[in-house]
Amino acid sequence: MSENSWAKMGPGEEFDLIRRMAARWGDLVQQAGDDGAVLDVAHGARLVASTDSSVEGVHFRREWLSLQEIGYRATVAALSDLAAMAADPIGLLIAATIPADVAETVELLADGIGQAARDGGAPIVGGDLTGGDRISLTMTVLGAASPPIGRSTAKVGDRVWVTGRLGGPGAAVRALLAGNLPSAEHWPRFAHPVARIAEARWLAEHGATAMIDISDGLSSDARHVAAASGVSLEIDVMSVPCVPDVVPRAACTSGEEYELLLTAPDEFDVVAFTSRFAIPLTQVGIVVENAGAEPDVTFIDGEERVDLGAGYDHFSA
Amino acid sequence: MSENSWAKMGPGEEFDLIRRMAARWGDLVQQAGDDGAVLDVAHGARLVASTDSSVEGVHFRREWLSLQEIGYRATVAALSDLAAMAADPIGLLIAATIPADVAETVELLADGIGQAARDGGAPIVGGDLTGGDRISLTMTVLGAASPPIGRSTAKVGDRVWVTGRLGGPGAAVRALLAGNLPSAEHWPRFAHPVARIAEARWLAEHGATAMIDISDGLSSDARHVAAASGVSLEIDVMSVPCVPDVVPRAACTSGEEYELLLTAPDEFDVVAFTSRFAIPLTQVGIVVENAGAEPDVTFIDGEERVDLGAGYDHFSA
Repeated sequence: MSENSWAKMGPGEEFDLIRRMAARWGDLVQQAGDDGAVLDVAHGARLVASTDSSVEGVHFRREWLSLQEIGYRATVAALSDLAAMAADPIGLLIAATIPADVAETVELLADGIGQAARDGGAPIVGGDLTGGDRISLTMTVLGAASPPIGRSTAKVGDRVWVTGRLGGPGAAVRALLAGNLPSAEHWPRFAHPVARIAEARWLAEHGATAMIDISDGLSSDARHVAAASGVSLEIDVMSVPCVPDVVPRAACTSGEEYELLLTAPDEFDVVAFTSRFAIPLTQVGIVVENAGAEPDVTFIDGEERVDLGAGYDHFSA
Repeated sequence: MSENSWAKMGPGEEFDLIRRMAARWGDLVQQAGDDGAVLDVAHGARLVASTDSSVEGVHFRREWLSLQEIGYRATVAALSDLAAMAADPIGLLIAATIPADVAETVELLADGIGQAARDGGAPIVGGDLTGGDRISLTMTVLGAASPPIGRSTAKVGDRVWVTGRLGGPGAAVRALLAGNLPSAEHWPRFAHPVARIAEARWLAEHGATAMIDISDGLSSDARHVAAASGVSLEIDVMSVPCVPDVVPRAACTSGEEYELLLTAPDEFDVVAFTSRFAIPLTQVGIVVENAGAEPDVTFIDGEERVDLGAGYDHFSA
C-alpha cells in the first residue's frame, strides 16, 4: 500500500495494527495523512538520509530479545547513521513486516520503537506495514546537518578517537551463542544501545574532521574511513576503551556498538565531553600517510603489529 | 549494516552484490560513501518523504513477473507517492532482501529498479541489503515540492478527475488467478505501470486542490480524499475511463493503478494535457457537502446508486 498516514485510514487489519501502534506513540506521530510526509530542512542545513533494515534471523534472534528491545534496537541502529553524519533527526519512516503472533502484542514493538525515536528526537512521519513470517523492520531516518561530517575527510596528522567503551555487544552475542547468560555489564550494550546524536553534534562543533558509527566493528569501520579518505590509520590496540571483562582485541571486532569513531587534528576537552555526556572519549590512534599503495589500518600492541582477522559479520542465520 | 555507500566498501558477499547492482545503475548512483546520503531541497520547496514495501507473496508473485518487472514495479509504486504529492524526486533509498537464487541474476532486478528510477528522475542515494527467503523491496523516496498537494484540501464544488484509464491491473490479476494469460492490453498496466510525476506537476500548476495516487483502487482512494478533506464525493461510475474489456464497476476497485485521482475547481485544458502526456484526463465526479454525519463517497450509475463493496485488497498469499 502507498498509505503514509497513521491515522485517517479505512478499515482493515493492517490499518488496525497501524492505529494500535500510533496510539502508543501519541504525539511522536507527526503526519498530514497524505501519500508522503511533508518536512522542512532548516535554511543552510543539508538533508541527510539513511535506511537500515533489522531482520529476524539475520540481525537478531527473537528468543534473545523482547519485542520492545527489537523495536528499540532497530530504531537506534538507523538513528546512529544520522549521528555518524552529525545530523539532527527530523523524521523516521518505518516499513515493518509483522508476523501474526507479533501482531497480537504489537504495542510492545511500538513501545520500543517509540522509546528510541523519543530519545533521538525523531518524529515518526510515515510507514508501511506488511504481514509475513519473520519480523523485518526497515527504518529510514531523515536528518538535518550544517554541515554533515562524512568519512572521507580524515587528514594525515589527525588523531583517531572513540566514544564510549567497546566490546559489550560482541561479548553478549558470544555468550548467547554458547548458551550462556550474558553478563549484566555486556547485555545492556547489546539490547539497549544508544545513538550518539548529541555527542556527535558536540564533536562536530569541536573540530571532528571525519566520523563513522561503529556498526561493523572498530576494525572494519576504521578501514571504511581509511579507504574513503585515502589515508592510513594506526590504532593502538591497548588504548581501545573496553567494557569490563573484554580484551582490547575482542573489542576491536565487536559490531553493533553504535559508538562513534572519528578523527580530529587537535585534542578534545575530554573532561568537558565526559562531564556532559557521562561516557569516555578516548584517543586510540593517528592518521598517517599510506605506507603501501592502498589505504590501510594497522593495529599495534607496543612494538608488535596485530592481525585482527576479518571484520565483524552478523551471526549466520 | 549501516552502510550507505554503494561503492567504496570492504569485501564480502553482501558488498559484492551491491557492487554488481551499482554497476548496472552507473551514473544513477549518487552518494558520498557515508553513513547517510547528503541531499539538498531547493530553497522555498518542501521535502516530501514516503516509504513503500513490495513483498513476494503479498504484493506480487514471483512466477507472474520477471525480476526486472519486480524491481521496476516496486520502484514505480514508491515514486507514485511522490507524484501524488506533486513532488519531484530527489533521491531513492533501497532496502532489499535478496534470496540466494535471485542473487545469481541480481543484475535483472537492478535493471528494473534502474529503469524506473531513471524514468522518474530519481538518483539512487542509499540502501541496505539483507539475505532472506523472499524478495522484499522497501523503497524510500524523497522529493521536493513547492508546494506539496495533499488529500485533505478538496473543496465542495470541486470537480473530481482521473488520469489515464483504469482496470488493467485488476483484470490482469483476475486472469492470472484464474490460470489464464492476461490480455496484451491489461498486462502492461500491471507489469509496467508509470508514476505520473510530470502529469502531477502539470495538474498542480493548473489548479489541482487535492490529489492521491490510485493504489488501493479508485473506490478506496476516493474515500481517503473524502475522509481527509471532510467532504463527500459523488462519482459517476459510467464516466470512469476504462481500459478495453473492463467495465467501469471493475475499474473502480482495481488497485495498483498508479494513476492520479484529483480535485480542482475549474475545467482543465484536457486537450493540452492529452497532447502533452498522451493519456486521457477525465472528469468523473464532483465534491459535495456531507449529506450524513461522515464524509462519504457515492457511486452513481444514471439515477441508481451503486454499491461497489469493499475496496481493493492485495491477493492473499
